[in-house]
Amino acid sequence: MVQTKRVLAIYTGGTFGMLKNEKGVLVPQKDIEKVIRKLPQLHDEEYWKQHLEGTEKKDYLALPDGKDTELKVLYKIHEYDELKDSSDFTLDDWIKMARDVKRFYYDYDGFVLLHGTDTTAYGGSILSFMLETVGKTVVLTGAQVPIFQPRSDGNNNFLCAILIAATQHIPEVTVFFGAKLFRGTRVKKVSNTRIYAFDSPNFPPLLEAKTTLEVDPKMLIHPPGTVPDECRVHDKLSRKVYVLKVAPTITPEIIRAACEGMEGLVLETYGNGNIPIKRKEIYKEIERAVKNKVLVVNVTQCINGTVLGKPLYETGLLLLECGVVPSFDMTTEATWAKLSYVLSKTELSYEQKVELMKTNIRGELYNPNHANN
Amino acid sequence: MVQTKRVLAIYTGGTFGMLKNEKGVLVPQKDIEKVIRKLPQLHDEEYWKQHLEGTEKKDYLALPDGKDTELKVLYKIHEYDELKDSSDFTLDDWIKMARDVKRFYYDYDGFVLLHGTDTTAYGGSILSFMLETVGKTVVLTGAQVPIFQPRSDGNNNFLCAILIAATQHIPEVTVFFGAKLFRGTRVKKVSNTRIYAFDSPNFPPLLEAKTTLEVDPKMLIHPPGTVPDECRVHDKLSRKVYVLKVAPTITPEIIRAACEGMEGLVLETYGNGNIPIKRKEIYKEIERAVKNKVLVVNVTQCINGTVLGKPLYETGLLLLECGVVPSFDMTTEATWAKLSYVLSKTELSYEQKVELMKTNIRGELYNPNHANN
Amino acid sequence: MVQTKRVLAIYTGGTFGMLKNEKGVLVPQKDIEKVIRKLPQLHDEEYWKQHLEGTEKKDYLALPDGKDTELKVLYKIHEYDELKDSSDFTLDDWIKMARDVKRFYYDYDGFVLLHGTDTTAYGGSILSFMLETVGKTVVLTGAQVPIFQPRSDGNNNFLCAILIAATQHIPEVTVFFGAKLFRGTRVKKVSNTRIYAFDSPNFPPLLEAKTTLEVDPKMLIHPPGTVPDECRVHDKLSRKVYVLKVAPTITPEIIRAACEGMEGLVLETYGNGNIPIKRKEIYKEIERAVKNKVLVVNVTQCINGTVLGKPLYETGLLLLECGVVPSFDMTTEATWAKLSYVLSKTELSYEQKVELMKTNIRGELYNPNHANN
Amino acid sequence: MVQTKRVLAIYTGGTFGMLKNEKGVLVPQKDIEKVIRKLPQLHDEEYWKQHLEGTEKKDYLALPDGKDTELKVLYKIHEYDELKDSSDFTLDDWIKMARDVKRFYYDYDGFVLLHGTDTTAYGGSILSFMLETVGKTVVLTGAQVPIFQPRSDGNNNFLCAILIAATQHIPEVTVFFGAKLFRGTRVKKVSNTRIYAFDSPNFPPLLEAKTTLEVDPKMLIHPPGTVPDECRVHDKLSRKVYVLKVAPTITPEIIRAACEGMEGLVLETYGNGNIPIKRKEIYKEIERAVKNKVLVVNVTQCINGTVLGKPLYETGLLLLECGVVPSFDMTTEATWAKLSYVLSKTELSYEQKVELMKTNIRGELYNPNHANN
Repeated sequence: MVQTKRVLAIYTGGTFGMLKNEKGVLVPQKDIEKVIRKLPQLHDEEYWKQHLEGTEKKDYLALPDGKDTELKVLYKIHEYDELKDSSDFTLDDWIKMARDVKRFYYDYDGFVLLHGTDTTAYGGSILSFMLETVGKTVVLTGAQVPIFQPRSDGNNNFLCAILIAATQHIPEVTVFFGAKLFRGTRVKKVSNTRIYAFDSPNFPPLLEAKTTLEVDPKMLIHPPGTVPDECRVHDKLSRKVYVLKVAPTITPEIIRAACEGMEGLVLETYGNGNIPIKRKEIYKEIERAVKNKVLVVNVTQCINGTVLGKPLYETGLLLLECGVVPSFDMTTEATWAKLSYVLSKTELSYEQKVELMKTNIRGELYNPNHANN
Repeated sequence: MVQTKRVLAIYTGGTFGMLKNEKGVLVPQKDIEKVIRKLPQLHDEEYWKQHLEGTEKKDYLALPDGKDTELKVLYKIHEYDELKDSSDFTLDDWIKMARDVKRFYYDYDGFVLLHGTDTTAYGGSILSFMLETVGKTVVLTGAQVPIFQPRSDGNNNFLCAILIAATQHIPEVTVFFGAKLFRGTRVKKVSNTRIYAFDSPNFPPLLEAKTTLEVDPKMLIHPPGTVPDECRVHDKLSRKVYVLKVAPTITPEIIRAACEGMEGLVLETYGNGNIPIKRKEIYKEIERAVKNKVLVVNVTQCINGTVLGKPLYETGLLLLECGVVPSFDMTTEATWAKLSYVLSKTELSYEQKVELMKTNIRGELYNPNHANN
Repeated sequence: MVQTKRVLAIYTGGTFGMLKNEKGVLVPQKDIEKVIRKLPQLHDEEYWKQHLEGTEKKDYLALPDGKDTELKVLYKIHEYDELKDSSDFTLDDWIKMARDVKRFYYDYDGFVLLHGTDTTAYGGSILSFMLETVGKTVVLTGAQVPIFQPRSDGNNNFLCAILIAATQHIPEVTVFFGAKLFRGTRVKKVSNTRIYAFDSPNFPPLLEAKTTLEVDPKMLIHPPGTVPDECRVHDKLSRKVYVLKVAPTITPEIIRAACEGMEGLVLETYGNGNIPIKRKEIYKEIERAVKNKVLVVNVTQCINGTVLGKPLYETGLLLLECGVVPSFDMTTEATWAKLSYVLSKTELSYEQKVELMKTNIRGELYNPNHANN
Repeated sequence: MVQTKRVLAIYTGGTFGMLKNEKGVLVPQKDIEKVIRKLPQLHDEEYWKQHLEGTEKKDYLALPDGKDTELKVLYKIHEYDELKDSSDFTLDDWIKMARDVKRFYYDYDGFVLLHGTDTTAYGGSILSFMLETVGKTVVLTGAQVPIFQPRSDGNNNFLCAILIAATQHIPEVTVFFGAKLFRGTRVKKVSNTRIYAFDSPNFPPLLEAKTTLEVDPKMLIHPPGTVPDECRVHDKLSRKVYVLKVAPTITPEIIRAACEGMEGLVLETYGNGNIPIKRKEIYKEIERAVKNKVLVVNVTQCINGTVLGKPLYETGLLLLECGVVPSFDMTTEATWAKLSYVLSKTELSYEQKVELMKTNIRGELYNPNHANN
């Protein structure tokens, strides 16, 4: 008898399920299950009628059989009441998603989140941090072209995401897009027009969907068998976190305004973590923010690169000396998410938060000076 | 008799000429000519002694002969009094550079600017706009590893930059790095650790240094022979321009603070040009800024992509309706530079400035709705 | 009223339509139309029932509507009686395909050939040469994963190929695979496991399927409007053409055996077109072959590169001197195909054949010494 | 006191040291040390005069100090009497090189081989096999542009190769080119015009020269400390090994001729290891060769890909059944080299040779069915 695996697919919004409205712009549509049910790549209606209809499994859809697995993969679509455009996703949405993974954790073998692509890098990161322990595979995916379109990439993305969630044991939050699976804390949206819209410039993909579909266990954060099969969620986040990009017209006023009322600031600096250092007033303003206990993290503007704990240039040295925290090779999105997570841990001292920012906790950074890498 | 070409190399600072100071960090060094003079790839001392010493050309260095050209290439290094770390470059520095290209325009056949890599994308863009007409090749270059190091990439970058300035007719501002020549308005620093540190994600390189070194004239803004051999410089810039990146924790206060006192704002949005649209207070704040005549330009956070004049998503439509200007496929750096340039044109009305932002003037964008592309 | 376009899809065999047989290996299946008819991305059954059933168009399938075109795209599948495994394709198969494009030329607006991937580079090349004039778009495509599999790439490849054949005017033989359209004479199979299995290392793709689907007319061999809407086929080919790769253990015997009975030989040399030159017996053997009127063409083993008419190394010079023909930047596959085509032109002298090999006739090479590039 | 490391650089020929002769083509030059001695990136003459001149180390050159290492790196250039053009390298040359590494093994800390690029992939492979044990780093390198040219890549390639040989412990045969270090058995020449001429399509580079220069020990065949510091060389090779590429015009005669007198044949097949199978006469001829104890190995023509032990297509199955050996993910060059090595082991039975071909012995293949991967 064939073993079955169950996947929960949470549909939260995004381009995946969008149709044009009367103004000619795309907005999310309800009842995505009806559309998916008609796509033979995603659902085997015959199997459903024979095996699921009228049973307690009637709310499941059934992946058609294929060479990728001997298992029978069933999945249920859990559609949110309010479907959102990707850019409208807020911290509350991710808190809800994290709680839902926990709520349904023991009912399923894996989880897929249909997510808007615009904020997938933010969401993949923040969910990685909130899911402090997760023993099952969690995959975010979506589409550049809506599933209502014949040329949609959503079909294949969704299919691969479900297959991976059902058949691969990757106990972390990941993102599948194009043909690749990325770590949630490493991924960036790199194109708004190409079908291969995502990449993880500082870390290799976890898996590539080729003629076969298999993860190399060496790529995972946790060696197989070392994660308990449980879901522990930290469902608080700090909202007082933002990003300031350094540009040549920066002024002390801009920095002051950016730090106003903030607990954490992602400072997107030049190159190896540099700011204009000859202009003392710039530096002084950042120093002032750190003294006021704003946790400032130094991230490079370069899509590939690191800000080290030992700066190469005079401009980077002062920042370190005044307490600005290097991001190592975290992305802007992961740094923002980690700040939001770490700053919500009110039980920690400022120094402990700083230390946590420099520590690899979800595969988000490589810090050559720490043992846990 | 061999024809000679003369190149002016302006040394402005940056990693290229840096040495470690007593604190162990890199700072720019004076008298770079002394170092370069000893590098046989960059200077033929024997030729100099035979042909230049004691003549009016004694201040020139001589590229050694090679297969790339039959010409004799001489170059003079013009070192700035104050050598700057890349991140310290300000608008004043680029105004000075633009004026210097104009000042020396008729004395040389081409120009190389040794520039700090951290701000090369900003500088390449802003110089492109300031040099309203330039009939000779202008190449910015620099190094990831200082020329004092045996493994410096500066040697080869500088050599190629001089060769290109002397032998290729590319009447625009360009950047040579790694093995490629990029358009000044298209380039981005994409890595702070790799030797191939630059790329132009929305536009192909103008040239690749292979076993041969040749530009394809089809890649240039102006067909050969269509640019007058003159240098016209617009040497004013607006300082009231900055960048605001959209992140999920954005608030109206952040936008208001970012627009405070500004004439122009680069809004780094999600995906195709989207912001959280359900949160009306965000939109209202941007609308307020536009009404107050802040020129807001919508640029995508994706390294490859465009923000079109006809938005795909509801979230993008409102921005357009309230007067936010799409960037098409300009980079953040080019948009910032163009804003600074356009806003300094006090003779133009607000509407004319908006129109200019949407128009391709230095190969910086492709706008499908305009004739001049 | 909506304008309709008709595409002929010729199904010749290949992985696209394969199922596992009793031995567990994949073999081509008949009646592919039945499978395609059930895929809603590829066929709109409702439209068919309403508009085509019972009419003279009843044998057409209908692409579902989508944002890529306002046109209604109908297509007919012409299945060959003998479906072949890709590796079994012979010259006769391509002659048949060329004749079929000609036979049906005026009945359709574009042509798709479902082709086995293993020989697509050979077939794309040889069809390009045989179709001496073609005024409509011809697209070869196929799949890495059969269309019977949920995770097949065949769906999307076939859909894009039909869309391109129906909506883009590209009067040449092309190959669509992954997300890119390549010129038939430039394409190579570069991976047997990845979904993006093809590339054209010496020439950019003609088109990338992004969120939109549009060809840049500058990429085409013929400017729009310059090709007559007709199909002229040269349906003869020489069978006496083969490939010899140079390896360090080469001997005169190997060369002699490879030339035995041949009219043309593709010599896959090292680097810039080099062979072991100190070993005179090697050179002598090649010289002997050329004297015997074997048309020997020098192609590099490097996937990216050229063999020029003016060699850089001593080892290349002698080859040229004895009459071996440089391939410029042709692929091995294109050179093989062009030889087979050119050598069948019995009306040409040996010298004319040599000249034709060095001339760009189907976008297959760039020869800096010829005017027609 | 600074620790010194000694590297032996064997100069065997190739573009690296070539100059144009009277015919205008490049030929290797003698006395390369004189040229290198004048390049300050490669030799610190002042140090030499102070510390080496007049001592027993007077024949060494001295790398200038730099940030990449605290060690003092000295190297000696051992120039072969007969410098060869890359394409003239034969098995005897590689046997000589292997013996020379053994001969000088205990006198140096690492080895660099200045090698012609055309045959570097062949040489890197064959030396990997011949050096059955080597406890020190061996690096092959060369140049696309001769070191006599200002724009030579030879400087940087040679410098990096020496630095790696002196400072990184990589006990295997490797190739440095462009900015990357590749495994000797994995590398291919992929371009004859670009400076980054090499790649290893089925295996990641071992190291990239970035602003820092460091190998990740996880990339190595042998974990650090597990290789004895000794050099064991197998200095016999079979000359009766060649390559036959499958093309659609293949005939039984071509196969028969290619197998004539051979002990081993690299069969470069289509896709996943396929040949025209419907044409029984083709298959029969291969079967005949295997029966005659020609060791036939099935390698794919695709630059990226594998031929598995369990074929996917009917065309591949028969080959396996008749005793053709799958190459897994070996390159053509590595397969050719391994055949030459394995077939020279006269102490092995045919079956043992077959088994060895399928076994990973120098990091050259990944065979999912073997334990030693």
